Amino acid sequence: MTLKGHHLIGYQTLAGPTGIEAVNPASGEALAPAYAMAGQAEVDQACQLAEDAFLTYRQLPLADRAAFLEAMADSIDALGETLTERAMLETGLPRARLEGERGRTCGQLRLFAGVLRSGDYLDIRTEPALPDRQPMPRPALAQQQIPLGPVAVFGASNFPLAFSVAGGDTAAALAAGCPVIVKAHSAHPGTSELVGRAVQEAAQASGMPEGVFSLLYGSGNELGQALVKDARIQAVGFTGSRNGGTALLRTAQQRPQPIPVFAEMSSINPVLLLPQHLEANAEGLAEAFAGSLVMGAGQFCTNPGLVLALSGAALERFVDRAGQAISEAEAQLMLTPGIHAAYEEGVARLQGRDGVTRVAMGKEAPDLACPCRPHLYRTSAETFIADPVLHDEVFGACGLIVECSSVEQMQTVLTALEGQLTATVHLEEADHELASRLLPLLERRAGRILFNGWPTGVEVCHSMVHGGPWPSTSDSRTTSVGSAAIQRFLRPVCYQNLPQEIAPDSLKESNPLGLPRQVDGKR
Amino acid sequence: MTLKGHHLIGYQTLAGPTGIEAVNPASGEALAPAYAMAGQAEVDQACQLAEDAFLTYRQLPLADRAAFLEAMADSIDALGETLTERAMLETGLPRARLEGERGRTCGQLRLFAGVLRSGDYLDIRTEPALPDRQPMPRPALAQQQIPLGPVAVFGASNFPLAFSVAGGDTAAALAAGCPVIVKAHSAHPGTSELVGRAVQEAAQASGMPEGVFSLLYGSGNELGQALVKDARIQAVGFTGSRNGGTALLRTAQQRPQPIPVFAEMSSINPVLLLPQHLEANAEGLAEAFAGSLVMGAGQFCTNPGLVLALSGAALERFVDRAGQAISEAEAQLMLTPGIHAAYEEGVARLQGRDGVTRVAMGKEAPDLACPCRPHLYRTSAETFIADPVLHDEVFGACGLIVECSSVEQMQTVLTALEGQLTATVHLEEADHELASRLLPLLERRAGRILFNGWPTGVEVCHSMVHGGPWPSTSDSRTTSVGSAAIQRFLRPVCYQNLPQEIAPDSLKESNPLGLPRQVDGKR
Repeated sequence: MTLKGHHLIGYQTLAGPTGIEAVNPASGEALAPAYAMAGQAEVDQACQLAEDAFLTYRQLPLADRAAFLEAMADSIDALGETLTERAMLETGLPRARLEGERGRTCGQLRLFAGVLRSGDYLDIRTEPALPDRQPMPRPALAQQQIPLGPVAVFGASNFPLAFSVAGGDTAAALAAGCPVIVKAHSAHPGTSELVGRAVQEAAQASGMPEGVFSLLYGSGNELGQALVKDARIQAVGFTGSRNGGTALLRTAQQRPQPIPVFAEMSSINPVLLLPQHLEANAEGLAEAFAGSLVMGAGQFCTNPGLVLALSGAALERFVDRAGQAISEAEAQLMLTPGIHAAYEEGVARLQGRDGVTRVAMGKEAPDLACPCRPHLYRTSAETFIADPVLHDEVFGACGLIVECSSVEQMQTVLTALEGQLTATVHLEEADHELASRLLPLLERRAGRILFNGWPTGVEVCHSMVHGGPWPSTSDSRTTSVGSAAIQRFLRPVCYQNLPQEIAPDSLKESNPLGLPRQVDGKR
Repeated sequence: MTLKGHHLIGYQTLAGPTGIEAVNPASGEALAPAYAMAGQAEVDQACQLAEDAFLTYRQLPLADRAAFLEAMADSIDALGETLTERAMLETGLPRARLEGERGRTCGQLRLFAGVLRSGDYLDIRTEPALPDRQPMPRPALAQQQIPLGPVAVFGASNFPLAFSVAGGDTAAALAAGCPVIVKAHSAHPGTSELVGRAVQEAAQASGMPEGVFSLLYGSGNELGQALVKDARIQAVGFTGSRNGGTALLRTAQQRPQPIPVFAEMSSINPVLLLPQHLEANAEGLAEAFAGSLVMGAGQFCTNPGLVLALSGAALERFVDRAGQAISEAEAQLMLTPGIHAAYEEGVARLQGRDGVTRVAMGKEAPDLACPCRPHLYRTSAETFIADPVLHDEVFGACGLIVECSSVEQMQTVLTALEGQLTATVHLEEADHELASRLLPLLERRAGRILFNGWPTGVEVCHSMVHGGPWPSTSDSRTTSVGSAAIQRFLRPVCYQNLPQEIAPDSLKESNPLGLPRQVDGKR
């Protein structure tokens, strides 16, 4: 498949003045072809097609939408080596990681197909008429969830498949019945084009209305703002920086009709080492922590950037062994020159900070254009609490150990933290009493709480929450991973005394689709 | 019970410099006592108590929170005549209406007690560990909904009981596990104090932590802004004007940590008279419409302010009869001098508008300080579409009939409408085909769609949606009436490999609370 560098608008491809080239982060060299830059005209065209498609798409039988999602997965699978090789060139991520990520991407499309077939997500509630009720009769009432409308999705740099063109937000929005316009991440336009063409092909082959999917390339600022300002766009999915997410959120809020923005932005993912477990396992924990910190050059939203533990000999053993592991760790390739530069800046910020000392740094890699040299720092709880800069995410393999003089101080640190995607507790039975006291604090700070594990690695399933309080996300009431993500793109509608003859199948009393329903508050 | 005019902060009453007096809208006279005005100190105190109470309150057994809600209902019922009489004086609403509204208020508190006892709202999802899964084991995962934190609730003027101190937002937030700080509406401070003291008493008698409920009086602007800016407040419930809701929303969005605002703001509630049904029932529809329009002086969020129909003899018959009914309608008392003034302004705006003609106006009432003289206007679809002023709500008994020259034009009018709480269709079998074509348009514009009824009167139940797209509400994904309102104040948390010994009862594998659960995606 030859890459063309064209926008995909509905079932067309559209060339335009080019302005984006991917960069091989290993060599720093540009990768052909150059990609078109979308302006207002392309946004207009994609949005109008999406709006037109919405009218049809949202009313398709659930089984048809499910088949489309499965066709997308098949079509992405069928890209084979071409996709893996281009993604490796553009992102520097290793083959095994990208193959795994493709599995996750296709898996989540198929998961949502299952969600559609079950129909549970429609949350159908009915209350039959009670004509004889006193003092007033009750009308017949029914409720279902309907899709919001066209959704703008912003591809993430660090998951070029699972959180990009056909990633979590796209899958959830298409499942909900919302057409999607993706702004490709400029770091992997070729990967985006390949996946975009697979989606386009699957949509056409599945008989979906034209405009259910479009893919545009362009500047994050100009194209992003134009999409979010367009009156036809009804919701936004974003994974990226705090600045980027906040800018889109402000724009969405200033529209004549504000719309929801689901932005996943930043998280330092605290890890608590409880005292008894630390005492018994300092070295093992240190090695596992270092392994998790440097995995994938630390380029995960859930990378464990912060460790909290009580002062003492056990913590010193942990610090020594973690420092040793970090100092032996190889530098790894980062995704883009921009991410590399931001990492270097973040490390420099910590390096010069009062009260912060470097425990270790990993090996250099003079051959790589965009290396991530792992870093580990330590500080006191007092310093951490007093210095907001230490609460900022450094995206990459950089960790900070915070030494607490007491359990109370650990609680104070937790209370001082901003919202997080995850919080992790390492414990054993003798720590349970303390863990019980900490759990309510952790619930208020994080969307997912893990025990005796590491936060990187997010299971795509029904119970997952990949979300959390501000600023980890802009809307803590939803998740971006797992089947519950479909709820982002839905809203409830109530029908009162709806004539059976005009009722959609989902609301007919005879329940021809066999949907699960709540009747008079009982399932 | 003697009214004191003091704030209720936790279990204390607090006097302060007074600045608010209720006004009897019939006579224009002030009603004693004068009420205290809260400043930053009172906000601080109430918020700190709420924050402290949250830690305990959210972890209480569901049955304890349910018993508290029921005690609130009992305590409000026990206020008896005192409450009805004060509310009549302050609002000018008739006895039967207020007695019905008290029933609804206590009914919705008891409904939420049932929601808590069933536990379905926790949406518990579990996925057991799969240690042998290839290529990676699956950890044990569980998800539940937890409360957001302290909530600020703004009492509405037009439902002094059901959407005020112990109204829908308060009931939903307390059910969710969130302490509530109510800003009393200045139009009915005495009613607010009576209900507030009943809630305070019920909280104390039920052993709830102090601070689970506070009630403050003060300026909508200053006290409202201070509450929404307070870092401890985690969500806002509001029913009122578009300007008021938008101001609170902007403040909430500009906080260092933005929070959700659930503001119900404005709606003109279109009513479609489909041609066959109009032909057969023009006079009956006209009388029913006029009755609905003037009911309660039109002071309902769901008042039918807009009628759409095709031109022709049947519409003229409808207009004639509706005009006749309106011209015979008595003026009724409005809630406050401010609402009365806004109504007069709204009517004057229509009166002078190009292309708008007055069909009829109701009788004068020179004896009333704040009368609502009903008004009915008509215009063409072209004029309506071109003039945004005609899309604004006129709160009160003022209606506008829009004459459409074709079905296509009716569709254009619907598309031009802003988001609405309700849309109503009057039809008979011969109109079903047309109704089927219109239904998708109505779904995109409204939260509730009614057939052959009138939108005033909102059933408090599981299927109800009292919400809708902007600007009818600030968040179309929720409802303010009915059991689903609890979802506003919740967010999901996922627990990974949670040790059974520290798991809350709701998440224990043995399910000691007998909660409904979804396991591996199946209920």
